[in-house]
Amino acid sequence: MKASKKKAKSSLPRARRRRLGEFERIACIEQLFSGLTNPFVQIGIGDDAAVIRVPGKRLVWTVDSSVEDVHFKCAWLTETDIGWRSFHAALSDIAAMGATPIGALSALELPKEFDDKRLLRLVGGQAEAARSLNCPIIGGNLASSGKLAVTTTALGSASEKPLVRTGARRGDEVWLIGEIGMAAAGLACLRHPSRVRGLSAIDRCVAAWRRPVALVARGLALVSRASSAIDISDGLVGDVRHIAEASAVAVELDLDVIQELASTELRAVADRFGRSVLEWALYGGEDYALVATGPASKRPRWARRIGRVTGGNDVWGVSRGRERYRLKRGFDHFDS
Amino acid sequence: MKASKKKAKSSLPRARRRRLGEFERIACIEQLFSGLTNPFVQIGIGDDAAVIRVPGKRLVWTVDSSVEDVHFKCAWLTETDIGWRSFHAALSDIAAMGATPIGALSALELPKEFDDKRLLRLVGGQAEAARSLNCPIIGGNLASSGKLAVTTTALGSASEKPLVRTGARRGDEVWLIGEIGMAAAGLACLRHPSRVRGLSAIDRCVAAWRRPVALVARGLALVSRASSAIDISDGLVGDVRHIAEASAVAVELDLDVIQELASTELRAVADRFGRSVLEWALYGGEDYALVATGPASKRPRWARRIGRVTGGNDVWGVSRGRERYRLKRGFDHFDS
Repeated sequence: MKASKKKAKSSLPRARRRRLGEFERIACIEQLFSGLTNPFVQIGIGDDAAVIRVPGKRLVWTVDSSVEDVHFKCAWLTETDIGWRSFHAALSDIAAMGATPIGALSALELPKEFDDKRLLRLVGGQAEAARSLNCPIIGGNLASSGKLAVTTTALGSASEKPLVRTGARRGDEVWLIGEIGMAAAGLACLRHPSRVRGLSAIDRCVAAWRRPVALVARGLALVSRASSAIDISDGLVGDVRHIAEASAVAVELDLDVIQELASTELRAVADRFGRSVLEWALYGGEDYALVATGPASKRPRWARRIGRVTGGNDVWGVSRGRERYRLKRGFDHFDS
Repeated sequence: MKASKKKAKSSLPRARRRRLGEFERIACIEQLFSGLTNPFVQIGIGDDAAVIRVPGKRLVWTVDSSVEDVHFKCAWLTETDIGWRSFHAALSDIAAMGATPIGALSALELPKEFDDKRLLRLVGGQAEAARSLNCPIIGGNLASSGKLAVTTTALGSASEKPLVRTGARRGDEVWLIGEIGMAAAGLACLRHPSRVRGLSAIDRCVAAWRRPVALVARGLALVSRASSAIDISDGLVGDVRHIAEASAVAVELDLDVIQELASTELRAVADRFGRSVLEWALYGGEDYALVATGPASKRPRWARRIGRVTGGNDVWGVSRGRERYRLKRGFDHFDS
């Protein structure tokens, strides 16, 4: 049971019995890849980015894909937006490790009908994003494909101790840096424009989805303060769960505070959809805000306290005058 | 005319007039990305891999995609082969820079119908390839998509002077390391099995296409010997042209020697297709052999002299008793 070889074998028959979930698939892949290492590798699969040790330096390294009709529809974005968005989404992992961007490579899969004008706008959006983060794009690959896909790999230079998921300790606060729920609200507006027609609040929500910003400077500033950090790509609860599991702790989220943090725009859009802002704030992804843990004495003024780390496991919601309750893994029918 | 900004602008209207070729697209992208750099970046777009300078170290970095129905058909390969092949194809760029693999990240795009058994075989093939090159896979990304695509990004550790494309000098020899034409012959066998039925030669040709091997040890050994190097992914003539252009020299290829190097298997398959072995050797890609230039005194015993570097430009063929002639960019109806 303890030998990693045994584990790797036992996961395979399980895979044959039923369809694996995404995280199970990742766990299986991790086991298959886990046998091999070398002196350069400090942290492999399992955090926002891998960590490589070169003399006098730590490098963090990530890869992320944006695929047409999976991550976006071309009708919802200009090509410039697609370039910007895919780049910042990838660099958000560098931010979450508290690292300074070194550079990026861009692998594009282009459909036959994707003409040069569109390509130049796409690449222009990537270049604009690269400038915004001072992260040069220094190579890449072009391939044709049925669907547009942008895969970005980025390297960052980290301190001796990059921000990882494993450091949260009992008694730490949970900090939110940036806004949450806005991108999910923006996506809902793009999917169902008739339901928000005439509403001025949609602009800022849609912009949050179309033009996310990787919080690189904030991530760097967290290095000396936070005990753990992650970027919110899948939704607050899901990503906080990664910290809880990696650090073997429980996290309590203060739902009243999270509700109070909701912007007027988020409230206005949620109202039109008959939704609770909490639903989008807890389970909506793609805002690329950061969530971190750390002692109260070290909380930066731009971080909001939204919960605390306790003993036990799992992610819990607490609210004035109510028992704490286990937060679900996600909404089954999120935005359908 | 000399200012790079002017160049960048002038390329855009051209793009609007007609469809750009792949290399023109890359040149446009290069211009758009060229404005930004930082002290880490030693070599950006334009070689087999980017070169990053960290204290006391040079890193080389590449990304490569294998897309279903573009680079392969699932009927021609097992999933294990797809994993192996995509990994070695990506690592071949690390070999061509004369670097030692540090690690790789794998970004997978998986169609809905791609079940767990197939996924585990694919990942198993990647893991097998990773072991064969001592290059751990230390992270990645999973996304769904319409077609299977495997994007591999790899980092290598290089000496002070990685093998680049720009170093070829007049008087150098041209060296071939590995076999060429075999993968193209193997692909022809897979496409038209009825034409080679019963021929024993097909096994080795098909294996060359399905299971290429990145020549990492050979690349490392070339560092102190070669003046330039590249891996042959697009075909000998096309890849040698990259060296000629980057080094501002002409390359003469000795067609008689190249013809003599053809294996009996390549001859047998070419015979069935009524092809010249030279066609596949010069224009067939995906063998991932290496081609390098260097002084005669430094040629390793495992490198074959197949030509020489001269003044001028372009790539030329020479053959006993014939004038030298300009080699075409590629065969228009290659393997159709």
